[in-house]
Amino acid sequence: MMQVPLTVGSLLERAEKFFPKKEIVSRTLSGISRFTYKEIGQRTRKLACALERLGIQKGDRVGTLAWNHHRHLEIYFAAPGIGAVLHTINLRLSPEHISYIINHAEDQVLFVDEDILPLVEAVKDHLKTVKAFIIMTDKDKLPSTTLEPVYSYERLIEAGDPTHSFIQDIDENDPAGMCYTSATTGNPKGVVYSHRGIVLHSFALGLADTTALSEKDTSMAVVPMFHVNAWGLPFAATWFGAKQVFPGPMFTPKLLAQFIQEEKVTVTAGVPTIWLGLLKELEQGNYDTSSLRGVLCGGSAAPKAMIQAFEQKYNIPFLHAYGMTETTPLATISTLKSYQKDLEQEEILTIRSKQGLLVPGLDMKVIAGDNEVQWNGKEMGELLIRGPWIANEYYKDDRTSEAFKDGWLYTGDVATVDEEGNIKLVDRTKDLVKSGGEWISSVDLENALMAHEAVFEATVVGVPHPRWQERPVACIVLKDAFKEKVNKQELLDFIAPQFAKWWLPDEIIFMDDIPKTSVGKFLKRELRSRLKDYFIEA
Amino acid sequence: MMQVPLTVGSLLERAEKFFPKKEIVSRTLSGISRFTYKEIGQRTRKLACALERLGIQKGDRVGTLAWNHHRHLEIYFAAPGIGAVLHTINLRLSPEHISYIINHAEDQVLFVDEDILPLVEAVKDHLKTVKAFIIMTDKDKLPSTTLEPVYSYERLIEAGDPTHSFIQDIDENDPAGMCYTSATTGNPKGVVYSHRGIVLHSFALGLADTTALSEKDTSMAVVPMFHVNAWGLPFAATWFGAKQVFPGPMFTPKLLAQFIQEEKVTVTAGVPTIWLGLLKELEQGNYDTSSLRGVLCGGSAAPKAMIQAFEQKYNIPFLHAYGMTETTPLATISTLKSYQKDLEQEEILTIRSKQGLLVPGLDMKVIAGDNEVQWNGKEMGELLIRGPWIANEYYKDDRTSEAFKDGWLYTGDVATVDEEGNIKLVDRTKDLVKSGGEWISSVDLENALMAHEAVFEATVVGVPHPRWQERPVACIVLKDAFKEKVNKQELLDFIAPQFAKWWLPDEIIFMDDIPKTSVGKFLKRELRSRLKDYFIEA
Repeated sequence: MMQVPLTVGSLLERAEKFFPKKEIVSRTLSGISRFTYKEIGQRTRKLACALERLGIQKGDRVGTLAWNHHRHLEIYFAAPGIGAVLHTINLRLSPEHISYIINHAEDQVLFVDEDILPLVEAVKDHLKTVKAFIIMTDKDKLPSTTLEPVYSYERLIEAGDPTHSFIQDIDENDPAGMCYTSATTGNPKGVVYSHRGIVLHSFALGLADTTALSEKDTSMAVVPMFHVNAWGLPFAATWFGAKQVFPGPMFTPKLLAQFIQEEKVTVTAGVPTIWLGLLKELEQGNYDTSSLRGVLCGGSAAPKAMIQAFEQKYNIPFLHAYGMTETTPLATISTLKSYQKDLEQEEILTIRSKQGLLVPGLDMKVIAGDNEVQWNGKEMGELLIRGPWIANEYYKDDRTSEAFKDGWLYTGDVATVDEEGNIKLVDRTKDLVKSGGEWISSVDLENALMAHEAVFEATVVGVPHPRWQERPVACIVLKDAFKEKVNKQELLDFIAPQFAKWWLPDEIIFMDDIPKTSVGKFLKRELRSRLKDYFIEA
Repeated sequence: MMQVPLTVGSLLERAEKFFPKKEIVSRTLSGISRFTYKEIGQRTRKLACALERLGIQKGDRVGTLAWNHHRHLEIYFAAPGIGAVLHTINLRLSPEHISYIINHAEDQVLFVDEDILPLVEAVKDHLKTVKAFIIMTDKDKLPSTTLEPVYSYERLIEAGDPTHSFIQDIDENDPAGMCYTSATTGNPKGVVYSHRGIVLHSFALGLADTTALSEKDTSMAVVPMFHVNAWGLPFAATWFGAKQVFPGPMFTPKLLAQFIQEEKVTVTAGVPTIWLGLLKELEQGNYDTSSLRGVLCGGSAAPKAMIQAFEQKYNIPFLHAYGMTETTPLATISTLKSYQKDLEQEEILTIRSKQGLLVPGLDMKVIAGDNEVQWNGKEMGELLIRGPWIANEYYKDDRTSEAFKDGWLYTGDVATVDEEGNIKLVDRTKDLVKSGGEWISSVDLENALMAHEAVFEATVVGVPHPRWQERPVACIVLKDAFKEKVNKQELLDFIAPQFAKWWLPDEIIFMDDIPKTSVGKFLKRELRSRLKDYFIEA
């Protein structure tokens, strides 16, 4: 067979060649604009040209601090297109972590959204490698800033060559992108994505048995483009020539609902908190969501009650998936096998609420100690994954040896596997509540609590206990309409039938808000820290 | 990213692990049997074990002379599973060509179906490398044969280890399979498939935008398993856990129709002559074909009238595809873009009758002389293809340089490209009729003739002409009901409105049968040879 490398540039080339008329809808600070793939292709080539003129060379890292919009999409292809490395930076991290990762990645240039400028200005004196700041503004004039040197994205593009060729001399194992994932302690850890990994992952997203991304789709990535490449959707959607919608900065649930209705979005992707917000909006408004064929949900486990609302109340298929920064990210996706389609609705919901089947192309095992667990939906163990779009290290980081062993990624996630091979995440290894020598799944308790009509958000953490080592404590945010109308005992009674008595939380604490990570996951570390003396003082 | 090779063995491993209960329906000489992937997996591992015991080593070629059935499927995985090379042999070739390719490939063992024994016995004295013949029979006792040494497939399997591991020490570029393609002149030419090529091609078959092969499918490969690996369907269908139906030896259109109805086949694949036969059967019988979501057709261009019959009369979507032995084979597939779905039925049919869009992962261009043709659906040129599942040579063959130049496969097919990027095959470079310095497409004339209600098969060849260099002559097989009821002038009048006058065939010859190649394509070389003096004598 020909030794033709799998390259990120070739994904855009297909869209330019076969789908030049298809549309990109992009929301920025000044409103909504529309582009075709032909235009995006020309702008991307101009940008690639501009990057080379700025001195960016093969292997150099190109940083972005940006929301989801068409310019960010252009950098997604322009950087790998010249052999450079697209480094998307999580703008919700602390200033210390942001400057750490820019320095650690040795970013040569930074692309910055206009509204993110203050964040970058605040850390600029700590940046050691950045030679240029490129401001993505819709205005003709650059905003005043203390950064230097600064360039206007649109001015750079104007001067570029719309026929600029993408790099040909490239190995498919060369780096194309990178992303940092936050660590429980210490600095974020970098993961490098190869051209090969991104292309194979794009194949995986197009399979009929996974997300079936297609030219017929209108794809709206709500998950930020700085969060594992928006789960790879912009790459795959471009390759297949799908229409794409980018919701831009500071979007609201209302805006998402409007986009779904007006642009006829068919598939959208985001974390559970996004979908909780959307559900709330759908309850209040009167939206036509009939175009949606799938809501892809990952990042953390989706509560069963939420899945039920989408599937049964709104008739929107829910695609529950699992992955992490280290897995590009798609690793598993909930799917009904052909012989399961006539099961009772409740059984189907149970399957849908699992993280599902391993995606074709990957290997997995779930181990407890040295042995693989039985596939009985009960035995818990740590999930290990292997495959061509799974990282093999953290970038220049001693912590590599903690997660990568014997050719496997140790995910740190505790899972069961049912008879059909479906993964169900039970917990993070570090979030399991260890009580009296036994394990209690915080996630199972959370899901049970979330099923109560009054509960908006629930999280359960293990709190040090003088007698039992740890005991579970639930932190609850009630829906507005139920505030101060539900008490601890009611919630405990509600979930009691599902659990052994010793699994039930010792305490339920009502809060206005649960602290979350920059990507919307519950910040259990923060809660554990707040509650660490709870039983010891008591 | 991890350096995990793409291997053929991993495709079966996924089916064993996640779809052990799914079914394989296999027809052999003694009838229909059913297996699960769990059973097929165990039998394949036993066979892999047996091959190693027979002394087969990494890189050795393992030949098969067999129909489509479960045992052939087992060899598909057992041979590459131990690092050997699956060499499927076209049993419809001449004895001379069969012994040539067995010797040229240096096959170490031959798997032979019971009813193919006479064919192998006839060439046995010419075979230089074969150390063992393995007879695939359903009977307990081996049939008497002059071959030696002979082994019983089922006895070998009985002795094998059902937990035998597939080879781990393998490079994805290592050979996994090979297939010979017939040449216009001289011996067949060998194409070697790598593990990487087969896995990437399997990804391509699973894409929502191509054949969307899925666990939900019941796949019936009618195209022989010795014809470009039955277009890769057995590999991909196994990977995705689809139910598979193998129609076995000497099947009839009636049998295919019955399988479709009884096994609820969702997708089936074969050459146009197979579907002409099936259409005839559907017209006579009363079959439920409602399970079918796609009839994949390739090998040669499907006539528009046939596509129309499937799509409009039977409501069966027709998936017109293009590829060749050198392309693993899927290269293009006809598909409607999202903005074309509301076109008039006639326009849709026109799109469907093209070979369609290039599959994601490949590159193409169509050149006339040194330049790419305009994408206007009119300019003709030779189709060039490049990509990771495209061959880069003929196996140990000097003719490599004729087809592989500058990193491209020169397909020898003449095509136009329309504004949307759809390929339409116009002819083989060698079948174009060169008349008075202009080109006439034999395929366009054939399609027009096939649209006449009386015509069962039509083929047009260029015949040497003293004045015009060549002139087109049509060879026609009429449907039984129209035999001797239609004359030359009627057919010419029927197609005249579509063509310039000088395109019309100078002669129409009615035949009982058009000679075909071993894979069902019209044997134009044979017709040209018969007719070479037609105008010169006249």
